Amino acid sequence: MMRNSKDSELRERARQVIPKGMYGHESVALLSEDFPQFFSRAEGAYLWDCDHNRYVDYMCAFGPNLLGYRHRAIEEAARAQAAMGDTMTGPSEAMVVLAEDLVSMIGHAAWAMFCKNGSDATSMAMVTARAYRDRRKILVAKGTYHGAAPWNTPNMKGITAEDRAHIIYFDYNDLDSATEAFRKAAGDVAGVFATPFRHETFNDQYAPSAEYALGLRKLCDDADALLILDEVRTGFRLSRDCSWSVHGVQPDLSAWGKVLANGYPISALLGSEKARSAASSIYVTGSFWFSAVPMAAAIATLREIRTTDYLERIVANSTRLRAGIAAQASAHGIGVRQTGPSQMPQILFDDDPDMRKGYFWAGFAVRSGAYLHPYHNMFFNAALTTDDIDNTLDITDRAFAELKRRLPSLPAQSNELVLQRLGL
Amino acid sequence: MMRNSKDSELRERARQVIPKGMYGHESVALLSEDFPQFFSRAEGAYLWDCDHNRYVDYMCAFGPNLLGYRHRAIEEAARAQAAMGDTMTGPSEAMVVLAEDLVSMIGHAAWAMFCKNGSDATSMAMVTARAYRDRRKILVAKGTYHGAAPWNTPNMKGITAEDRAHIIYFDYNDLDSATEAFRKAAGDVAGVFATPFRHETFNDQYAPSAEYALGLRKLCDDADALLILDEVRTGFRLSRDCSWSVHGVQPDLSAWGKVLANGYPISALLGSEKARSAASSIYVTGSFWFSAVPMAAAIATLREIRTTDYLERIVANSTRLRAGIAAQASAHGIGVRQTGPSQMPQILFDDDPDMRKGYFWAGFAVRSGAYLHPYHNMFFNAALTTDDIDNTLDITDRAFAELKRRLPSLPAQSNELVLQRLGL
Repeated sequence: MMRNSKDSELRERARQVIPKGMYGHESVALLSEDFPQFFSRAEGAYLWDCDHNRYVDYMCAFGPNLLGYRHRAIEEAARAQAAMGDTMTGPSEAMVVLAEDLVSMIGHAAWAMFCKNGSDATSMAMVTARAYRDRRKILVAKGTYHGAAPWNTPNMKGITAEDRAHIIYFDYNDLDSATEAFRKAAGDVAGVFATPFRHETFNDQYAPSAEYALGLRKLCDDADALLILDEVRTGFRLSRDCSWSVHGVQPDLSAWGKVLANGYPISALLGSEKARSAASSIYVTGSFWFSAVPMAAAIATLREIRTTDYLERIVANSTRLRAGIAAQASAHGIGVRQTGPSQMPQILFDDDPDMRKGYFWAGFAVRSGAYLHPYHNMFFNAALTTDDIDNTLDITDRAFAELKRRLPSLPAQSNELVLQRLGL
Repeated sequence: MMRNSKDSELRERARQVIPKGMYGHESVALLSEDFPQFFSRAEGAYLWDCDHNRYVDYMCAFGPNLLGYRHRAIEEAARAQAAMGDTMTGPSEAMVVLAEDLVSMIGHAAWAMFCKNGSDATSMAMVTARAYRDRRKILVAKGTYHGAAPWNTPNMKGITAEDRAHIIYFDYNDLDSATEAFRKAAGDVAGVFATPFRHETFNDQYAPSAEYALGLRKLCDDADALLILDEVRTGFRLSRDCSWSVHGVQPDLSAWGKVLANGYPISALLGSEKARSAASSIYVTGSFWFSAVPMAAAIATLREIRTTDYLERIVANSTRLRAGIAAQASAHGIGVRQTGPSQMPQILFDDDPDMRKGYFWAGFAVRSGAYLHPYHNMFFNAALTTDDIDNTLDITDRAFAELKRRLPSLPAQSNELVLQRLGL
């Protein structure tokens, strides 16, 4: 038996009944064959693929797993609610409690609206911003990801020019560019999307300056436009409030998803008082937006966020991994760039234009039981222990050693989609 | 204690932290005070509001509850999957099995893509249709509901003209109007949205003619455009295949949601072979689209659909209720119109311009334990028994009697939003 025989079988079957065999952000089409497509089990910090290979999981379901898969208190809350009812003819008390909890925890929030996808929350933010002063223009930093709806999906296939007629793009972390976008909009700016830090696939990550955050806030205030902070990817991994609260900047709207219920499907748009009437005027809904189980799970998740040191542990463990990898890279004489917050790290290699080094290194780690990613930011969860980190460091040390040994004859990047993505 | 003291308390708290206190299709803003906003429990055919009043539920969570709330086999499948993993770093085997099941059950389907909201499925259909031949125009029958995204939400607040620049509206069940829309699009038709039957709130429902269904199919074929059947509301309540299979009409794309996992959050776009390459070319995704529990629940739901007489029982029970109500209305000399399929009935009253009769009658039923709706189509589920139907008929008979007694002095419609909606 190969280590991936079940995965190969499922991929073949999937190609028959699913376009391309898989779609969206969890497709492994841009990864090497070391990465399994299908998983069978998740518990705490661990993940098992469909061939029962175990991994310490540094992707956390691309974010949702904040506190550990199948976290006891959250599972218990979900189970108790499920015994009563989930998707009913209306919401349950949990919806009110959850909204109250979020309003009490998030500095700018006076109200909450719940939905399912991160894209629901960002699209609702756009529509609310337009309704606020009956304006049309939405400012978005070039290349930032805010969802996969016609107005913001990164792939233009099937998208019309009109879907983005009122989106104005500006350069991230560049106040002059944002100011110019306001000028171009000539009084018609409804809202500005802000990304807490720059987290682009295949690229180094970076934080914007405090001046940029403060400057966007002022531009919005001066124009009576809404500042929208997209916390879908970052929420509760950088802060227990909105991420820009460290700069003293509060948005008017914030979009949340992924971690909100530690993996149960729910997202949310939060808003300040001044945006309430606009949010009240729009029509948005979804078949499962008022289901009680994800709300009960979210209430339990928020309780853990408020009452435990989950964030401090995530920061400590992710700092430990980052320091260990930096020391190993240096010892092996291999240049590595670890960027972004340690809790959401991107690891890229120097002098690696076709990313053969990064793919080899991450692939070695995956084969050895540490699920590291070569082009997408990773995510830490609070179930990781220092032992997990140290075990991963054993693996990465061997990965560096093997990379160094193989370096002179390392095969070029062979994934056509990756080469395309890199413009090679 | 009033029968709604907890509901009143929750509504007041909700008004503080949720815009308008509630939003979307499950808001009771257009209903009378007889209708609770918050629910605490659901089991089989029954629903309990947050004040513990019990109802026979004829709304079924606005569709999702097809086989009975907390259906044993489906709950068991969901629980077994939840013990292994739900939202992980990739999909599970359940995704492949579910796609295979749908492809085997739905006549036109060669592939499936999963998502969360009905609106996700209809939006993906639109984008896929545009990608199919790189065209732009989407034909939609006036007043039909296909979701609440910027391109199709019924409320224009926060929506720009450009969001609908390439939507061409035509008259439902009117082939001349559809033909004219094709002519206007001048070779640029990407796809046509079709609604299995007309189910508009506040209006009588009706089925289109077979000629209309066949005609739309031919118009699409002649223009090499895709026919998209929106089964989100109707799926598996009219047929075990697409609803227009009775006319021998198969769509190229079909959108599904609501019932797919009997209340677990999942929706789907199904497509025929000729649309596969277009579907492969677009980028759509969502944080929870690949979660395993709703897929396991969907597999179990589809098994019940294939192997039980759920549909025949739904038809028999809904026919029984319809016949009973018709006999009662006639006996009381009150004109009632019961329209649409009996499984998804709309019940409106003759000579009732401000709907005071319908609101009184449904409100009486709700106070008496039968959750009937005055303006939205209702839904039957397979957990309903003939005893439930007969108990409901006892209630509706008393409701008719009381309506007749009160008719001379029945208060006018007092809900301002309803009067607005009715143009009064």
